[in-house]
Amino acid sequence: MNIEIVAIGNEILTGATVNTNAAEIGQALFKAGYRVQRHTSIPDNPVMLRRGLIEAIERGGLVIATGGLGPTCDDVTRQAAAEIFNSDFYYDEAIADELKVRYGDLSIGLKDQATVPSKAIVLKNPVGTASGLVFSSSTATLILMPGVPREMRVMLEEQVLPYLKSHFLKDHRYVSRAVHFFKLNETSVDPLLRELQVRFPSVEFGIYPSHGILSVYATVHTSDEAEGMHVLAPALEEIASRFRGHLFEAHSGKIEEAIRHMFVQNRWTLSVAESCTGGQVSARLTQVPGASEYFLGGIVSYSNSLKQSLLGVPEKLIRDKGAVSEEVVMAMAKGAIGATGSDFSIAISGVAGPSGGTPEKPIGTVWMAVVKKGMHPYAVKFQAKGTRDIIIEWSANTLFGELITYCRKIDKHTDEVI
Amino acid sequence: MNIEIVAIGNEILTGATVNTNAAEIGQALFKAGYRVQRHTSIPDNPVMLRRGLIEAIERGGLVIATGGLGPTCDDVTRQAAAEIFNSDFYYDEAIADELKVRYGDLSIGLKDQATVPSKAIVLKNPVGTASGLVFSSSTATLILMPGVPREMRVMLEEQVLPYLKSHFLKDHRYVSRAVHFFKLNETSVDPLLRELQVRFPSVEFGIYPSHGILSVYATVHTSDEAEGMHVLAPALEEIASRFRGHLFEAHSGKIEEAIRHMFVQNRWTLSVAESCTGGQVSARLTQVPGASEYFLGGIVSYSNSLKQSLLGVPEKLIRDKGAVSEEVVMAMAKGAIGATGSDFSIAISGVAGPSGGTPEKPIGTVWMAVVKKGMHPYAVKFQAKGTRDIIIEWSANTLFGELITYCRKIDKHTDEVI
Repeated sequence: MNIEIVAIGNEILTGATVNTNAAEIGQALFKAGYRVQRHTSIPDNPVMLRRGLIEAIERGGLVIATGGLGPTCDDVTRQAAAEIFNSDFYYDEAIADELKVRYGDLSIGLKDQATVPSKAIVLKNPVGTASGLVFSSSTATLILMPGVPREMRVMLEEQVLPYLKSHFLKDHRYVSRAVHFFKLNETSVDPLLRELQVRFPSVEFGIYPSHGILSVYATVHTSDEAEGMHVLAPALEEIASRFRGHLFEAHSGKIEEAIRHMFVQNRWTLSVAESCTGGQVSARLTQVPGASEYFLGGIVSYSNSLKQSLLGVPEKLIRDKGAVSEEVVMAMAKGAIGATGSDFSIAISGVAGPSGGTPEKPIGTVWMAVVKKGMHPYAVKFQAKGTRDIIIEWSANTLFGELITYCRKIDKHTDEVI
Repeated sequence: MNIEIVAIGNEILTGATVNTNAAEIGQALFKAGYRVQRHTSIPDNPVMLRRGLIEAIERGGLVIATGGLGPTCDDVTRQAAAEIFNSDFYYDEAIADELKVRYGDLSIGLKDQATVPSKAIVLKNPVGTASGLVFSSSTATLILMPGVPREMRVMLEEQVLPYLKSHFLKDHRYVSRAVHFFKLNETSVDPLLRELQVRFPSVEFGIYPSHGILSVYATVHTSDEAEGMHVLAPALEEIASRFRGHLFEAHSGKIEEAIRHMFVQNRWTLSVAESCTGGQVSARLTQVPGASEYFLGGIVSYSNSLKQSLLGVPEKLIRDKGAVSEEVVMAMAKGAIGATGSDFSIAISGVAGPSGGTPEKPIGTVWMAVVKKGMHPYAVKFQAKGTRDIIIEWSANTLFGELITYCRKIDKHTDEVI
């Protein structure tokens, strides 16, 4: 079945908003066994909106559209969809009563929200004012959801996915699995994949590098999960074993999840001392639910004075070696253990740009350190390329990879010096 | 002119990757005076890729596509585009030499990268292996760029935008401006916009709420910037003045930028003590270049032990009132000033979920505090709704709004108690 996702809103076309809805819906459908074939984003101008919707509906199957359902004057999706499906509107007392309970008196906007197309099934919105709508014809189904991500997400989980499962056969023609690596280049993996492509002609391989993290996806066309895994498993195992030192295991593909797993399993605690990443390393670690089981906290020593007062880095060391240096990150890592009492700590200091680069330490120069309590820190220099945000993301990923590598060695030798 | 952006790659359709490229290209083109009319994402399956590209090219004008140009076996865009434009390939010695200098010996993959379609203009890639390509027919231009964001970004800035400026007239039919607010609801602004829509019929208004930040865009159809601003200015001024207390000024629409501006202008310094946001508050502040001019650093006191040892929050207070309480965030804010010596500090502690909620403090309960050195902290409770990441983002935005509100009052009364 053809499945398409349509996002409606000028803010997406002008790049003011990143279209995360399409990714979320795509992911949820993929996990539920449906394969999305196209994403489209179109303006909320009535003419272009109508044209884009009609094109998607004419390609047939299922169209899931988000945006333009809100109570404000620029929200025109409902009107356009009703016209396409020749529907009139009615004032739904039940929706109105529900909105009254939640928002008090009904403004003009809220009265609009209780006026819905008679030919559509209404999907309740428990966290916002815009109901979802399902229109059907003999060849296509159009599902409309609000564009506000948290409203879309609840409606998708609670109503749209169950609706799909009861109305559409799963698209289980694919079985797909991924393996994830840190500190590994696309060009290192490619020769192996070309070789595997010859030996496993029924498998499609894909490489997805993302600023220090690289994922390899292998997909086989079959509707039988066990049969698919039988084909995929040896290919994946070859990829994994060839780059074992770079491999991490995380269902989400997030290296933070692998770190959490390793630390919780070993009952270790972790702290962070970060400068150039400005809180991003801690924020990434704590994005994973359950981070509090091992992550004690972090010190964002953005200024040199805090490197001294909170982490005990000697002023002279910063003056002599510079804040971005092997010696200072080692002292920061040791200082984090001193300040927090954690078993392990990681530290990072670099030049994230756009200013602050020098010939010796150009923008993207990052020093990072890992240490276990009572041991000598391991430090390494990393040269990132790109804009400020890329340098921050890339060096955080690299630091996470260094942490895993360091811990694996510790793990093996039971606390011997590496 | 019709302008479309096409992203190629299964990882986008399955939601493994968020399509940030489309947003970046859309934004860059919007700023350069071009208006994008459609974004499309299609699989890297050769048949569907070809069909999607042909459809976009047939709608005419300019098509900017990203992805599938890499050196790996799943990269098929170049082949598909060459077929559409009836082009053969040649081995480009200059590209090969350049790749040899940067990567040493040429692997099979890199030799592929030096083999380019003879009918295309080649765009150099200074940070990766995949060249960009420009194909032209009498009715359409197809520009191909690599899908890796940092490679795309450099090529867009250095080559694609200059190419557009020299080959295509700007689409200056629109003049658009935005005003940004914190802690303001869509439904509060909507009645005013409906009123303004009647009084300013030539202006299009759009409301974009995003987890505690709300932006109103006003657009007028004219090719004359001054004339456009003449129409927009009074409408924007009315919106701004009606919600003056919620307004912030930032070219990027980011509230962190407004905070930086306020602090640098007043020569104030800031520190952060954060718990549930796990580093995100500091990370957001330091994403803005030049944050080091006012931001001293932060303490991510994720564990209660760090709230005590680094911020001096009394153990008894945490035990009696709970880590998520008015008293504890006030103590955290004062502790941050004590630990860092900053002029101001902000503190936040809450239940981000997915676990940890109680009937008295359900998931989403967040306490936040703002304080100026030597003064009594201001604390406020906020109830966020949504998933873990939304609760974190929303409460960070709300805290930033509280900080601005607090500072404005300080500013007026020159250090009087609020």
